[in-house]
Amino acid sequence: MKRLLIAAMALLMMACAGSTTQKSCSTPVVAGEVIELLTVDSVGGASINEALWARKSSRDFSEEALSLEELSGVVWAAAGVNRPENSHLTAPSALALYPIETYAFLPEGIYRYEAVEHRLVRLVEGDYRSLSAMQDFAYTAPLNLVYIADLSRYEEKGFPRETAITLASLDAAGYSENVNLYAAGHQLKAITRGSYKAAEMVELLGLDANRYCVILAQTVGK
Amino acid sequence: MKRLLIAAMALLMMACAGSTTQKSCSTPVVAGEVIELLTVDSVGGASINEALWARKSSRDFSEEALSLEELSGVVWAAAGVNRPENSHLTAPSALALYPIETYAFLPEGIYRYEAVEHRLVRLVEGDYRSLSAMQDFAYTAPLNLVYIADLSRYEEKGFPRETAITLASLDAAGYSENVNLYAAGHQLKAITRGSYKAAEMVELLGLDANRYCVILAQTVGK
Repeated sequence: MKRLLIAAMALLMMACAGSTTQKSCSTPVVAGEVIELLTVDSVGGASINEALWARKSSRDFSEEALSLEELSGVVWAAAGVNRPENSHLTAPSALALYPIETYAFLPEGIYRYEAVEHRLVRLVEGDYRSLSAMQDFAYTAPLNLVYIADLSRYEEKGFPRETAITLASLDAAGYSENVNLYAAGHQLKAITRGSYKAAEMVELLGLDANRYCVILAQTVGK
Repeated sequence: MKRLLIAAMALLMMACAGSTTQKSCSTPVVAGEVIELLTVDSVGGASINEALWARKSSRDFSEEALSLEELSGVVWAAAGVNRPENSHLTAPSALALYPIETYAFLPEGIYRYEAVEHRLVRLVEGDYRSLSAMQDFAYTAPLNLVYIADLSRYEEKGFPRETAITLASLDAAGYSENVNLYAAGHQLKAITRGSYKAAEMVELLGLDANRYCVILAQTVGK
């Protein structure tokens, strides 16, 4: 009977391996010019019910860096491809136009997420986390995401500026809620934020201020 | 060895029971004046990774009704209390003002969700699903959710109308993305929608059109 139980538990552990891989593996992030992200496990994290019960906005973050597994999962949850056949993303977008670009502010630099390649590409070297927020807790948290809309995607379809901003807001909030639930399901902390230094970020990133609009930001950490 | 495997599989099935409870229970909804919803299991549904991989927008729905377990889970995912100590919800809201009211359009009537009481209260009897959408598939799907903002919540804090709509859009999209992931994790179909007969709904519900604004809609079914 004891051997039976041990064998059964071994099988159980194998069955659970998918959900613990991301916690048990902790590869450090090497924040060079490009950060190649890991494919996110098909099974992993808490159940959707647990994630929804645990969802909350956190405002106290340690400075501890995210592992490559955690960073990969968080960024993919926001804006990752979940249907490679048509490059559609984890979150919906009106008319599937996907005007939101996801930027990751790490201590080492500002990166843009390339969804199809599933990688972060550095645009600016250095610590600019303070531009991504107006609250102290974000300045030292390991990851701040900033969602910036290319409004021309909607405007070219005939939507006026005001409607384009509303549509982009709906899109970005889906991205950030995916991250909130991913974080809740992987024992990470997160908060969706509406305050940041928008003009300074747009200028630093070399974006056309008439076309690009900062919509939302988010802090993720431990 | 065969007995060993059988025992192991029995244990595995026990370990998975939490995620199948809501599927195995199928209580019919009695759509009277009040629908008392069931408390959502603390553990249940697929893992958060599976839900994110499965998230997509569906446009083909059967007419099959949701069970009470499914209806309870979907509505709670949108706007349910997940921290009874402060009545905070599954989705975030700017300044925790929660201006979004969630309406459920069922074949039997239009219901408003009361989060603290976790129940649906009927406002109008009859099938008004066609008001909640502009697309045929929604007219016969078992559930349409409509997110309507009380803009005065933000305007009273000094935000101009345009900003209030943007903030309400961010809120509502979080609600609907919670539902998208809950559906993906419970083998239900869902789609976030931006088209509906707003003026007719606001009038039918007896809402002040200068104060209430339809922000977003969503179809859920099988």
